[in-house]
Amino acid sequence: MKNSIGQSGQPLICASLVAGSQDEILLELAGILAKQPDIIEWRADFFAQISQPAKVLALAETIKQTAGNIPAIFTIRSECEGGQPIPLSAEQIVELNMSICRNTSIEYVDCELCNKADHLGSLKTVAEATGTKIIGSFHNFVFTPGREVLVEKFVQAAEYRLDVAKVAVMPQCLEDVLTLLGATLEAKTKISIPVIAISMGKYGAVSRIIGGVFGSALTFGVGSHASAPGQLPIEDLKTTLPIITKAMGA
Amino acid sequence: MKNSIGQSGQPLICASLVAGSQDEILLELAGILAKQPDIIEWRADFFAQISQPAKVLALAETIKQTAGNIPAIFTIRSECEGGQPIPLSAEQIVELNMSICRNTSIEYVDCELCNKADHLGSLKTVAEATGTKIIGSFHNFVFTPGREVLVEKFVQAAEYRLDVAKVAVMPQCLEDVLTLLGATLEAKTKISIPVIAISMGKYGAVSRIIGGVFGSALTFGVGSHASAPGQLPIEDLKTTLPIITKAMGA
Repeated sequence: MKNSIGQSGQPLICASLVAGSQDEILLELAGILAKQPDIIEWRADFFAQISQPAKVLALAETIKQTAGNIPAIFTIRSECEGGQPIPLSAEQIVELNMSICRNTSIEYVDCELCNKADHLGSLKTVAEATGTKIIGSFHNFVFTPGREVLVEKFVQAAEYRLDVAKVAVMPQCLEDVLTLLGATLEAKTKISIPVIAISMGKYGAVSRIIGGVFGSALTFGVGSHASAPGQLPIEDLKTTLPIITKAMGA
Repeated sequence: MKNSIGQSGQPLICASLVAGSQDEILLELAGILAKQPDIIEWRADFFAQISQPAKVLALAETIKQTAGNIPAIFTIRSECEGGQPIPLSAEQIVELNMSICRNTSIEYVDCELCNKADHLGSLKTVAEATGTKIIGSFHNFVFTPGREVLVEKFVQAAEYRLDVAKVAVMPQCLEDVLTLLGATLEAKTKISIPVIAISMGKYGAVSRIIGGVFGSALTFGVGSHASAPGQLPIEDLKTTLPIITKAMGA
């Protein structure tokens, strides 16, 4: 697959769809695709009709077909990890994630590591059968836990036999950004799956540019609207990432 | 003064002159000035006539006049800190540094912190009288000492009442780059003079791009030839630094 997470020499640039209605989402998608991201994410928790599975599945497939050979991530971010409030239970979300695997061509599904182990296990079983990759994610929009906690989150995703480990945390100072980068380095020595590591907000913005140096396989840029604080315009990532890749190859 | 170290919103881009003869140095200077660095450094330890003070002083002033309102740093890097072997004693080097203060318009003189305290004190006294700024520097081209050692080097420059503290060290792994950046952050909480912080070589190249985020006031770019390993082309610094400054201002 083109632009598989973890297969590229420099981090993939990902843009998220965060509009609320089908029409707005498809408009947003067209605008984002014009900026040529490497991969897209549909933040389905922003979708007003998220509680109607048939509509979600149909739109997911439309998004995927429109994106063509650009891979797509399907994400329902829970409210407690920074997502929108939605009327679905944890069980219903896992059900929907499994339906995405079974019924669409979406390549990646994001599932939070705080889910019950058997939910993650069931999803992984379905995803293995359908060839879908699962991103096990952890977010903290308030602060940056200690390095050992962050490393443990990355390791947990690997222990669940998921395909990608994602950690996104909020720094309260620049030292916290170094903690996230150090945890990323350490995680890479302990697990073999690709990782996505993000320090958010104003202090963390630098991590979105140089995270790849320390092992992060993907960085989120702003397509039309930011999906989390501190994201840079795709254009700025496209300008800086090749320079950093070249500099680190010296 | 335009482009004073520590007065700019983003790190100054500095290019070093490393040619051996007067003709080559002036040719190199012309090429570097065309790239519009913020500040230049004459690495006088590369100058074949370094043991002839009158020639050094005359060329220093010619360089300064040619550079116009771009500030200049005069540096004799010692062999043990990564410089060229030269036939001058430590005493003769301090003498020459004082002559530069007294007899040229050069704005900055680099003096290594490993010099005797009374040498540094004498130089500082002369520099205060002439308005020249002294950069107290520490280099390790082999490895990166621990964080507390690095912080101590920055602090030492402030304790000597010098004007700028510079630490440039070689990482043996990416973790060492984080150590240098963390030491820079910590130093900024302990001292009020501007700092220049550099992690060198292939692992450290990223620090030349994002050091400013963590408090470094200056980054060295390649004018014609690199003066230390890991330096990026000036053009690449000019492209990336404004994007990083903008991102961190978000």
